[in-house]
This record gives sequence, C-alpha cells and structure tokens, in this order.
Amino acid sequence: MAGDSFGKLFKITNWGESHGKGIGVVVEGCPAGMPLSEEDIQPFLDKRRPGQSSITTRRDEADAVEILSGTVDGVTTGTALTLYIRNKDQKSKDYSEMAKLYRPSHADFTYQKKYGIRDVAGGGRSSARVTAGHVAAGAVARKVLKKALGVDIIGYVKSVQDLELKVAPEDIRPELIETNLVRCPDEELAQNMVSKIEAARKSGDSLGGVVECQLRNVPVGLGEPVFDKLEADLAKAMLSINASKGFEIGSGFGGTFMQGSTHNDVFFDDSGTVSTKTNHSGGVQGGISNGMPVVFRVAFKPTPTIIREQETVNLAGEDVVFHGRGRHDPCVLPRAVPIVEAMAALVLCDHFLRFRAYKNLFDC
Amino acid sequence: MAGDSFGKLFKITNWGESHGKGIGVVVEGCPAGMPLSEEDIQPFLDKRRPGQSSITTRRDEADAVEILSGTVDGVTTGTALTLYIRNKDQKSKDYSEMAKLYRPSHADFTYQKKYGIRDVAGGGRSSARVTAGHVAAGAVARKVLKKALGVDIIGYVKSVQDLELKVAPEDIRPELIETNLVRCPDEELAQNMVSKIEAARKSGDSLGGVVECQLRNVPVGLGEPVFDKLEADLAKAMLSINASKGFEIGSGFGGTFMQGSTHNDVFFDDSGTVSTKTNHSGGVQGGISNGMPVVFRVAFKPTPTIIREQETVNLAGEDVVFHGRGRHDPCVLPRAVPIVEAMAALVLCDHFLRFRAYKNLFDC
Amino acid sequence: MAGDSFGKLFKITNWGESHGKGIGVVVEGCPAGMPLSEEDIQPFLDKRRPGQSSITTRRDEADAVEILSGTVDGVTTGTALTLYIRNKDQKSKDYSEMAKLYRPSHADFTYQKKYGIRDVAGGGRSSARVTAGHVAAGAVARKVLKKALGVDIIGYVKSVQDLELKVAPEDIRPELIETNLVRCPDEELAQNMVSKIEAARKSGDSLGGVVECQLRNVPVGLGEPVFDKLEADLAKAMLSINASKGFEIGSGFGGTFMQGSTHNDVFFDDSGTVSTKTNHSGGVQGGISNGMPVVFRVAFKPTPTIIREQETVNLAGEDVVFHGRGRHDPCVLPRAVPIVEAMAALVLCDHFLRFRAYKNLFDC
Amino acid sequence: MAGDSFGKLFKITNWGESHGKGIGVVVEGCPAGMPLSEEDIQPFLDKRRPGQSSITTRRDEADAVEILSGTVDGVTTGTALTLYIRNKDQKSKDYSEMAKLYRPSHADFTYQKKYGIRDVAGGGRSSARVTAGHVAAGAVARKVLKKALGVDIIGYVKSVQDLELKVAPEDIRPELIETNLVRCPDEELAQNMVSKIEAARKSGDSLGGVVECQLRNVPVGLGEPVFDKLEADLAKAMLSINASKGFEIGSGFGGTFMQGSTHNDVFFDDSGTVSTKTNHSGGVQGGISNGMPVVFRVAFKPTPTIIREQETVNLAGEDVVFHGRGRHDPCVLPRAVPIVEAMAALVLCDHFLRFRAYKNLFDC
Repeated sequence: MAGDSFGKLFKITNWGESHGKGIGVVVEGCPAGMPLSEEDIQPFLDKRRPGQSSITTRRDEADAVEILSGTVDGVTTGTALTLYIRNKDQKSKDYSEMAKLYRPSHADFTYQKKYGIRDVAGGGRSSARVTAGHVAAGAVARKVLKKALGVDIIGYVKSVQDLELKVAPEDIRPELIETNLVRCPDEELAQNMVSKIEAARKSGDSLGGVVECQLRNVPVGLGEPVFDKLEADLAKAMLSINASKGFEIGSGFGGTFMQGSTHNDVFFDDSGTVSTKTNHSGGVQGGISNGMPVVFRVAFKPTPTIIREQETVNLAGEDVVFHGRGRHDPCVLPRAVPIVEAMAALVLCDHFLRFRAYKNLFDC
Repeated sequence: MAGDSFGKLFKITNWGESHGKGIGVVVEGCPAGMPLSEEDIQPFLDKRRPGQSSITTRRDEADAVEILSGTVDGVTTGTALTLYIRNKDQKSKDYSEMAKLYRPSHADFTYQKKYGIRDVAGGGRSSARVTAGHVAAGAVARKVLKKALGVDIIGYVKSVQDLELKVAPEDIRPELIETNLVRCPDEELAQNMVSKIEAARKSGDSLGGVVECQLRNVPVGLGEPVFDKLEADLAKAMLSINASKGFEIGSGFGGTFMQGSTHNDVFFDDSGTVSTKTNHSGGVQGGISNGMPVVFRVAFKPTPTIIREQETVNLAGEDVVFHGRGRHDPCVLPRAVPIVEAMAALVLCDHFLRFRAYKNLFDC
Repeated sequence: MAGDSFGKLFKITNWGESHGKGIGVVVEGCPAGMPLSEEDIQPFLDKRRPGQSSITTRRDEADAVEILSGTVDGVTTGTALTLYIRNKDQKSKDYSEMAKLYRPSHADFTYQKKYGIRDVAGGGRSSARVTAGHVAAGAVARKVLKKALGVDIIGYVKSVQDLELKVAPEDIRPELIETNLVRCPDEELAQNMVSKIEAARKSGDSLGGVVECQLRNVPVGLGEPVFDKLEADLAKAMLSINASKGFEIGSGFGGTFMQGSTHNDVFFDDSGTVSTKTNHSGGVQGGISNGMPVVFRVAFKPTPTIIREQETVNLAGEDVVFHGRGRHDPCVLPRAVPIVEAMAALVLCDHFLRFRAYKNLFDC
Repeated sequence: MAGDSFGKLFKITNWGESHGKGIGVVVEGCPAGMPLSEEDIQPFLDKRRPGQSSITTRRDEADAVEILSGTVDGVTTGTALTLYIRNKDQKSKDYSEMAKLYRPSHADFTYQKKYGIRDVAGGGRSSARVTAGHVAAGAVARKVLKKALGVDIIGYVKSVQDLELKVAPEDIRPELIETNLVRCPDEELAQNMVSKIEAARKSGDSLGGVVECQLRNVPVGLGEPVFDKLEADLAKAMLSINASKGFEIGSGFGGTFMQGSTHNDVFFDDSGTVSTKTNHSGGVQGGISNGMPVVFRVAFKPTPTIIREQETVNLAGEDVVFHGRGRHDPCVLPRAVPIVEAMAALVLCDHFLRFRAYKNLFDC
C-alpha cells in the first residue's frame, strides 16, 4: 500500500518525480459549484517555486499549473479535479556519480534498499518537488474553506537557526509576511535571517528552522475521536513534508515546563461566544477544534544538500567521498511556508466535510 | 467518518467509554499461527493501569484483558482478534455539577458542541481510558514484531517538567526503566521526578513532560512515500494520544539549530552493513527506515484535571467556578510510556505488513 | 489487510466466530442524538436467528443483543457504538472428524490453506453466524434512514428453487411478507415453498433461491462516480453474504434480452417530481439514485450442509467419505431476507452520509 | 467522499471526462522492478477503443497511452505510476439541446440533481470513456499477475440478446476470441451476433448481453473474510462498469435451481493437488480462491444511446421529445470484454498483494 494519497473526504493523490514529466495531483471530493481557474492556484505555487529569490535554489521552474479535469466553464463539477505542473528545467546534468553512491541524509539509500531501483535524477519521487502538488491541491482546499467558512490560513517563518521571532501568535501582523524574502513578519529579524541564509549559501552549507501556522475562524467541532484528532491529522500532514522533523500544537514542547494550574485555558463568555483566555490548547481540545485559532509549529532540518565534500559509501558499501556541486537551497524555510499552509488546508477541509456529513442530521 | 480505527493492514478499531461497560479493540490483520494468550497482553496493561503506584491516579482498575475472538487453542487464526477490558471501578460519584459546565482544557466543551450530547461520566469517549485498547492491541503488534523481526521497543520518561534525562539514546540502559515508579532510566533523576510529582499532587496541581521512545532492530525499508512516511504515521499516532502536544524525530526541534554540514548523517560500512555515524535522522530517511534505531519524543501537557478552583462557563455560557475534587493523576508521564510504545508498535507492524506485500515479489 | 470492516462514513467492523464467545460489531459514524436501545435492534435479529421456525436450522440461539458502548441514557452519542450477541447453544459436538477433512463447498479447505490453521467448530469465522453482526448494525442504519429520510427497506423471498413469485416489485404488498415462515408475499406460493423446503430437509438435501429487495423513498443523489456507484456498493455488500452467488439490479440479467428502445426509462413529470414510467434502471442511473425505488435481487445457492454421505479429501489429500449429520438449514432464504435488508441499509446509510458532506455546501 | 479510487494495496485513482483533455489513472502500489512501457498497455486499449470495427461507435480515438510517472529506463520504480490517454476526437457538436433535457436512462438527471451542474459534452465524467483508465491500469495489474503467478485472464462475449454461447467455461478455446469482431469464441455464433448488432444499428436501436470471464492459475488463498471476499470485490468492480446490471459467480442465478447434493463441489486428489470435480463455486469458497478457475458473468443492458425520438423532460420538468442523433454504439459487449478483464485483473492483483503481506510471515 503506497502512500500517495492523503485525506478521506477531501482526498488528494499525488504523482510525479523531480526530473520526470511533471507533478500532478488528483483532488477527489472537491465540492461542486465553486468557480475555479488556474489563477486561483498559481499564486500559491509561485510562493513555493524554486528560483523565486536570491535565497532559494536557482533551479528555474515556472511551475505553471494546468487544470486537467473537474471543471466546466470555470466551475467545479464535483468530480475528480486534476492539477498538473509540468517540469521544465530538468538540468541534464550527469547523474552517473550520484547513481553509484548514497548522499548523506537523503533518501538514496533507503529507496535503493526498499525498491532495488531508484530514480537518481533529482531524487525522483523522494524530492521535495512533489510538494508542488500539495500546494496546488491546498489552494483548492483553501478556497473551499474561505468561501464556506471564512477560514484564514497564516503561515510564516518563526525561526531560522537561532534567530527566532518573539511575537505571540495573536500579535502576528499577516501583512508583514510577504514584505521580505524569508516570510517572517518582523522586518528587522527577516533581514538578519536573509543575511544568515546568504552566508550559509556562500559557505556551501545549509540552515534549518521553524514555521508557525495559524488557522483562524475555524468553527467548533472539527476533528474526530479517537485517532483522527485534528492535531493528529495535522501532525501526520506536517511530518510528511520533506525535511520536517517535528510538530507541536499550542504550548507544545514548551508547555511541558508549565503546571496544570497555569496551562489550563480558562473559558469565559466573550460577547455571547464561549472563548478561552489563553490558548495553550492551540485551538483543539479532545482532538476537536474549539473555535480558538489553531496554532502549530513545524521544525525543518538544515537541507541535506550542501556544497561540500562528504564521506559516504557507494552501492558496493565501500567508503567514498561525495562532492556536492551545483544548485542548492541553503534554507527551505521560506518555501516551506506555502507547503505547511497547503497541508493544513487539506486537513482542515477534509475535517470540515467529515463534520458536515453528520451536522444537524436529524434536523432537516 | 469517525476516527475509531487506526492502521491499514494491521488495523485496530477501538470502542468504549471511561465509565461504560468496558474498552474493547478489534485487531484486523493479525497474522495467523502466532501463540497468543491474555498473559502476553496483561503486563503492558499493568503498566498503563491506574492505581499502579503512589504517583498515579487512585482509580483502581485491574484492567484484566479478555480475548473475545480470533484465537483457537491459544493460537491466532488470522481473523478478527478482539480484546476486551471491562470497567470495574466506575465510582458512582455525582456528575450533576460536571454535566452543567465545561472543565477547562478538557473535551467537555468541544464534545458538547460537536454532538449536542456528551457522556459526562469520566469524560466518556474523550477519556484517556480508551488507550487501554491501544495498549492491548499494541502488545499483539509487539509480539508479531519481536517474533518476526526481533524488534525492541523501548520507551521511557525523558523529562518531567524541568527535570530532564541527559543520557543519549544510544546509551540508555533499558533495564533501569522499570526500577522506579516514574519509568526514567536514571535512578537518581527518577527519585527527583517522583518527589516533584508528589509535591504537585499535594498542591492539587499537575505536571507535564516528555517520553522518548526507541525502536531497535527495525529493518531497512519500512515507510512509504509521499504521505505515509514512517515518521508521519508515528506523528499521527502520538498526537492521537490524550494530552500529547508535540512530536519530534531524531534531531527534532533541536536540530534546527544545527547546520547541514554537521546535521547530515555520514554513511559508513559497519562490518558489511551500511550504517550512519550519527543518527540525527532518527532512523528514517525519505520517510523510510534506514536500519538505525528509530528515535522520537512526545510532549505531554500537564494534566488538565487539578484539585483547584477554576473559572469557567456553564452550558448557558455564564461564568461559574468549578471545584476540582476527587482522584487525579498529577502527571501522566509514567503511564504514557506503555501507550507511546503501543502506538509505535502498531505503526511499525502496519508498515512491516505493507512492506511484505511487495518485498521480493518477482523473486518467488 | 483483513476484510472485517465495511463502509466509509457509516462503517462497521465485525468480529466473532460461530462457536466462540459471541459476535460483535462496532458501528463508527452513527449520528449523535438518536434514541437507541436493544429493542430497536432485537426484532431484526429475531428474523435472522436460527431455530425460529420449522424450516430453519434447529440450533437454538436467543441472539439477544447488548449495546456495549456509544449511547448514554438511551441516546447515541456520535461515538463508537458497539453491539454484542453472545453465543449460547454451542453444541459441544465432536469436531474431530471435521478437523481432518474438507467439507465440500464449505470454506474448510480455503481457510486451512490460507491460514495454516482454522477454527473447526461450526466453521469459525466463515460461518454465516457472523451476519448476526450485520443485522444488528443494519438495524441502526435503518433507524437513521427512516428517521432522517423516511426510507423503507423491503426484502422478501422471490424464489425457492423453481417456485418463483410473479408479482412485479411495485405491486408487492409488504404486509404479506411476515404472514408465512418463508417470507414470501404471496400466501399460496409461500405454502408451496414451505412444503418444498420441508421435503428437502427430510431428504437431507438443501435448496437455493432468490431474495428481492426494494428501497423506497431514497432521495435523488446517493452514489458516487466512478467506482462507488450505488449498485457497485450494493453488489459488494450482497456478494459478501454467505452463500450468495449473484446480484442484479433493475432489469438485471433479464434486461439483456431487451432493446434500448424498450429498456430506456422514459422521464415524465409526475406532479412536479421528475419520475420514470418504467424502472428498468432499478432506481440508479450513472451509479446515482434517481428517486425511483431501488430494486435488486440476490441469488443464494443451496446450502452446502446436507445430511448425506459425500466424497471429499482429508488434510493429507486422501479420498475419504464425509458423513453429514446433525442440525442443518435446508434453505437459507427466509433467514437471508433480514441480512439482505441489513446490508442494503448499511450501504444506503453510508451513501447518505457521503452525500450530506457536500450537499448545499456553499449555501450555508 | 468521491469514488474515483479503487483497490487497497494495488490502488488506482481515475480522472477525466469524455470530452475533456483526457483520461488518466494513477496506479499506487505497483511493485518495483517490472519492465513496463506503453507497448505493454496499448494492445488492451486498442480492444476497448471506439471506432475499432464496424459494430462499434464511429468516434475515432487512437487512445494512445503515455506513461507520465513511475518508471525509470522502462522499469517500474515502485512509486506512483501514472497513465494518460489524451482525448482527440471531441466532435465539436452542438450540445445546447442536450444541456436542456435529460436523456432517458443516462446519468444526465442524476448528475444535475446531485451536483447542480454537469459536464454536458459526451456525458462528462459519467461517460464510459473513463474506463480507458481502468483498461490501462488493468494492463499493468495483468502483467504483474502473469509475471508473478502465471495468471491468465480470459474474457469473451457469452451472449448478445438471445444469442447465447453454449460452451462450458472449461471448454472455451481462448484463441478463437479475437477471430471475430464480437469477441465470442464460436465463429458461427459470432457471425450471427455481428449481424444482429448491425441490424440494431441500422434501426437506431441497441442490444445488451453477457460477458463471461475466467481467471486461470489463481493460487489458493486470495480473498478475505468477512466483507472483502474475492467475489464481493469482483461484484463491486463489475457493477462499477457503465451499463452493467448484474454479476454472478460460478453457478450464479442458475444455481438456485439445483439442490445441495448436486451443487456441492466434491474435492478429490488431482495428482497431488486438491481439486474439485465440478466448479459450481466458481473458484471461490468462503470468499477465498480455491485454486479452480474463477468464473463469473456480467450483464450489460442495451446501451441507452439510440437514434430514435424519445419522450423525456427538460430541466424545467416539462415534457419534451429528444431526437437521438450522431454516433452511437449499438452494443457495448465487444468493447466491454477488455474492461471486464481489466477490472478483474485489478481486483486479483490487489488481493494478491494483500495475501503476500501475511504469507509465511513467521517463516522467514
């Protein structure tokens, strides 16, 4: 059972490789009657695409999306919606060295051992390029959520290595996120991050960091006991993203330093709506959204592609030296933001549909 | 679509409530021909059961498991295996106050709003008591993994609030884990943890912390691209556990402070086996196990049940004060260890079966 | 991946064996807020239970259902609902002969070869006794459908061997079905069927036949393109029932003798509702319900248990003679009616919930 | 939850519309290491393609398949395999009349009511054109099954209206199937069928019939209790095919006229292999393959597209007359053969992988 599909009611199936013909995604369960064109999707792909700025990889892909099925006259029909992003800049470099060894902390070794064969060019199916499909599908989910519920999905870079944003989630100003290359809603900090990333690039090295994401205007009731808790599905979604190493919601790991008496979120009546004074829960209680913003963070490791000499072994198990060369992405964080947002949109839209199946069932 | 099932090939379906008749679990996909009796399962339930020590809740449940189906003469038949744990100590306390308000940071509010009805006694379906089913099923998965692959699953308390174990995963001595009430493989630290938990209990408060878990002897190849990466399924499993707020694998959040050049795990030939010098990857690369120990951590918040007066609202949305009383678990960490292990076993066993479906397919 | 679960949103998971402790079923996705007690379920089990009349097996089981979880104060909570039917009359006969050979047209051989082990007593998991779980869960689905949509599910015996009911589906009088032991809504024909079945029993032989089932008041829109067509899911449901060998909807196999010009169902305006003059489609077009009665038929083979000497082989592959003895069911048709109805209810309820997830999504 | 996916381990997801850009299919779970090129797939599409002979629709589509992902150097990589068939001959006819009314026994009405919108051209997603994807994916499954197990899949036309092939399944000569346009392995009967179909075409009418299919060399053990019986999954697969109205396995509906004593398949030792003297079971017992040929039949209704005037209603519910015109397929049977075979291959390959997951688990 391969793992190319995600979601239950709003379900996507992803295909394609880094240097193959393209990346595609089938969206099953998109509601009928929603206006949808490539223009709704392209802006999100533009945020993810390589070559977008001086601090990302220089592979140059337009990442133009094409709708292959599922709409008629620019409106969704409720049937399988397919989005396709053709690959263009598949640099015809020589992969003969890479075919013979395992790049450290890449998927070369595990794919070779699992399948007995691997698509060497650009990492094939293990490449983060597959997330173009997630972003495209996420744009559709996002439109459904916005149109039906008014949900806002706000992701941004929380930290690059030791440079950390100190603004509380509720004080984030979303309009600042796109004012800088690194997508951090604090201009001064963002400039420091950019400098740090450029320095890493020059030294052929790479950096990691944390993306924080908020889902605002989520209705009460999304998420299911026992296993399909909203945070459980978010965690899976986030850990499926290439290079991610951790997920936390609300107070997260930091919350383990608190005590119940201060960690508990006190309910109060906020002009007729039940609200909580704090949001250590991160918008979910018992696995179900409580109407507060859903706030979570995702850790991304320093990209394994570096322009250095590294020890490794070849397919025969012999010690060899691998010489990293060419284009590399010194820090995936800026491009990770739209991917995190997209995966969050997919999870939320799926749970929204699951919720609707039962809502007020005996009333109508 | 309710979320009572987990797994694809080795799949469990859980039912039951805190103060209902019992907790049960159907295990689908358990291989045939494995000796299995209640004695294989009970020891793991004993580690999870309430009332096991002075630092856990005093609810007294024997948590005796009964096999309802799926074996004949003590051997699995390959058909639906069902395990059942009857509830005993359903303290007939008065729930009339709790029925009228929402306990802070519990699931009372979200269940009430989602369903329009809730099982007040003990939190009903939202209670951590449902994890008894996970532990029972996990014991079966564990036996399959041990018998077929020799996998060892080793969980322990990594921290209680600010008391943190400083031993590296590879230096953990598993035989120390059960030498103390808190399940921390460092006796001195464990005593401090116990003291801290007892102090919290006395003050009616609660503490959080982190469980670390290692899976040793995992073969290369478990996990699937793109969404069903091994760490993605582990993340979902862990975030589905009550009170968990975070998950990280390998270097996790801490790894974001490193650089690619130091974070990359160098491959080397270890007496004929490809191994890595470090394990920042946490045993998975490209979502697939690489033969190194799978190491991950799970954050648990301070339990929301505290013996304090807390502000909240009632069902009418009016401000009220809730007086916590009775039995409470000042720190779930010691009891979380077997739950984390069980969920890990379930994920791993599922991926083992998924792997087997394709392995050497054209060879035989 | 075992096949103990059925359905997507309204999903059941079945466990238990013929002579084990009992048969159980977990119902996931039952809507909250519906009054439900054992009394809602028992009447359907009574129609399926053995020993109910002179023409069924004499195994005597009360088949009393118990709700193990999922309700509070007699109302569904929206969480996992579990129903349990304990086995009582597990006749402690000697299975040592049966353990050594394969009964013709039973599952003895295939289970033994697939699993390397089998539960000999009563056929274990392969027994039709497992359908008690289907009937129990079906009763819940049926109540949901009746309460929310007013759906009526009407099953009856269409034929026993060559004795065939000649009444058109629209002319069936449901009130006649339970007036006779065989559940055929034609009293005279029913008496002939009873006589035929009794003759078969006396000669130690068995008979097959056809059950017809109608679903009335099904709203337009249930069923999904491309694979989850309503008739596809009904077909799977029906072919999963023990001893069934065929399924047809609407005109079915007989319709292959017609021509398009006479087979096409002409639409007309029926007092403001679009209706069809004929119903060769059987209530589905393009896999989706069209508002007309859903009409289908299921073929059941003559039961393989007969009281005769039969040639077969033993586990060593040697030719032996098997002496059928004891209780047997000379014709499963009367007891198949509630099973067919239950499976139909499960399919329909699942598709109803799937439909609701999208219905009027952008309107509210 | 849309129904565009089929299968569990060998899973396909289909997209596309009759007059859209093309039909595609993602195959998840295709084993790695199998040589695969378009040439392996095209012959099966050629059997399904319109315009192939004088007795099929004259829409002219090359139906050339393109592999979009999942292979490297002509070998499967074990990752998502995608096949794409671009539409060419999308006759730009005027659909304005069809947009305003519901063609009898088509999906126009149900799609319009379910979605509030429909893709009028060629029936959009409800068109049998989507089965091109099934056939393409089926060709892959078939190659896996042949290579790993030696399975042969043999489908042929059993009847066209009242012209019925009288040859028993075991006496079918597969080499005769492709000797005639109608795919019936009896040359004289085939000529009569062709004449009958041509007469139907001339009169603007259409015919139905039955396809029979045999799966030979299926190993013992495929199929799962309780719901995922091999025949249940075959039934679902077959009833998902456009225009199918019935499914039967082994003795099927005809078997209901027999008695247990003659219907039971007697086991005997056939040179060291357990075999059965008759095959009324159709190769499955207890839902699991028994090593005998799996034999089943599928009923197809007369195509609803006829070149006649037909009464119907328009979108406003008013009575109108619909004038059928243009290209039509007077009998889908010849083109249904490769579709039935493909769906059977998909079911069998899925169950083969499911079987492998558990097989000899504790032996290796």
